[in-house]
Amino acid sequence: MRHAEHAVTVNAPLDDVWDILVDVEGYADIFPPTQAVAILEEGPGYQIAKLTVKVNDEINTWTSRRDLDAERRVIAYRQLNTAPIVGSMSGEWRAFFLDPNTTQLVLTHDYVAREPVNGAVAGRFTAEEADTLLHAAVERNSVADLEAVKREAERRQARVAAR
Amino acid sequence: MRHAEHAVTVNAPLDDVWDILVDVEGYADIFPPTQAVAILEEGPGYQIAKLTVKVNDEINTWTSRRDLDAERRVIAYRQLNTAPIVGSMSGEWRAFFLDPNTTQLVLTHDYVAREPVNGAVAGRFTAEEADTLLHAAVERNSVADLEAVKREAERRQARVAAR
Repeated sequence: MRHAEHAVTVNAPLDDVWDILVDVEGYADIFPPTQAVAILEEGPGYQIAKLTVKVNDEINTWTSRRDLDAERRVIAYRQLNTAPIVGSMSGEWRAFFLDPNTTQLVLTHDYVAREPVNGAVAGRFTAEEADTLLHAAVERNSVADLEAVKREAERRQARVAAR
Repeated sequence: MRHAEHAVTVNAPLDDVWDILVDVEGYADIFPPTQAVAILEEGPGYQIAKLTVKVNDEINTWTSRRDLDAERRVIAYRQLNTAPIVGSMSGEWRAFFLDPNTTQLVLTHDYVAREPVNGAVAGRFTAEEADTLLHAAVERNSVADLEAVKREAERRQARVAAR
């Protein structure tokens, strides 16, 4: 199992960053790799969503359960149906108050590539190749996702300031 | 100017992590690259320390001013005299409450390599080489420093639990 943490400082209030994180349907508008998001089920403190995402230049879909802790400003996500090379994928979005106009955003991943079947993952990769591809995708998408939340929160902040 | 952020989750209470961060003289015991630390000056909310650190297999020394914000659990550091290839180096150690036994630790860096003199940085590197070396050192030492604080905080935590 691999673990990764990525962080970015957002020049916007905690509440505004949280609003963007909670709005999973809005992800398709702000995360370039995310093509579409559909909420399959929703209840107090959780969402189950189907995501269509470009990973390593391929379109993958998976279903993700998100447990929202509004008090701690943490969203724990867990893929229920994974993409073809993914064995398991979970982690957290965490937003922390740094000062009234600054938020520390952290994204964590716990993941492992899918076990090979007849020596191959997704019919065409060795176990090592699948691990390398998945690790690279997590690195690339973490940076892109954090930057996308930062950009959107700061864009909204600039609009408020301009009023 | 380059900006970098690195993060790690520490399985120890916020106060314990903060104690380790504040004890700059203790860094020589817990950070493998840090050979020695001497406090040159200290006052309410700040420390000025001389650090002797192994960087890219060379021993470098610099003087760092650290401003401690105990309420926000943030230490802002700034090198007053920099290492030979460093033009400027500053950033923050930030510790956030995640739950009573878990702390989010973040380390940021804002830095730039030193300007070349007669076409060379530190008498032997091109500007591009100095930038590459410095970037690699920040990446390597960030991961090592965060892991060192995590290891020490969790070691102390295990001792408390064993009592």
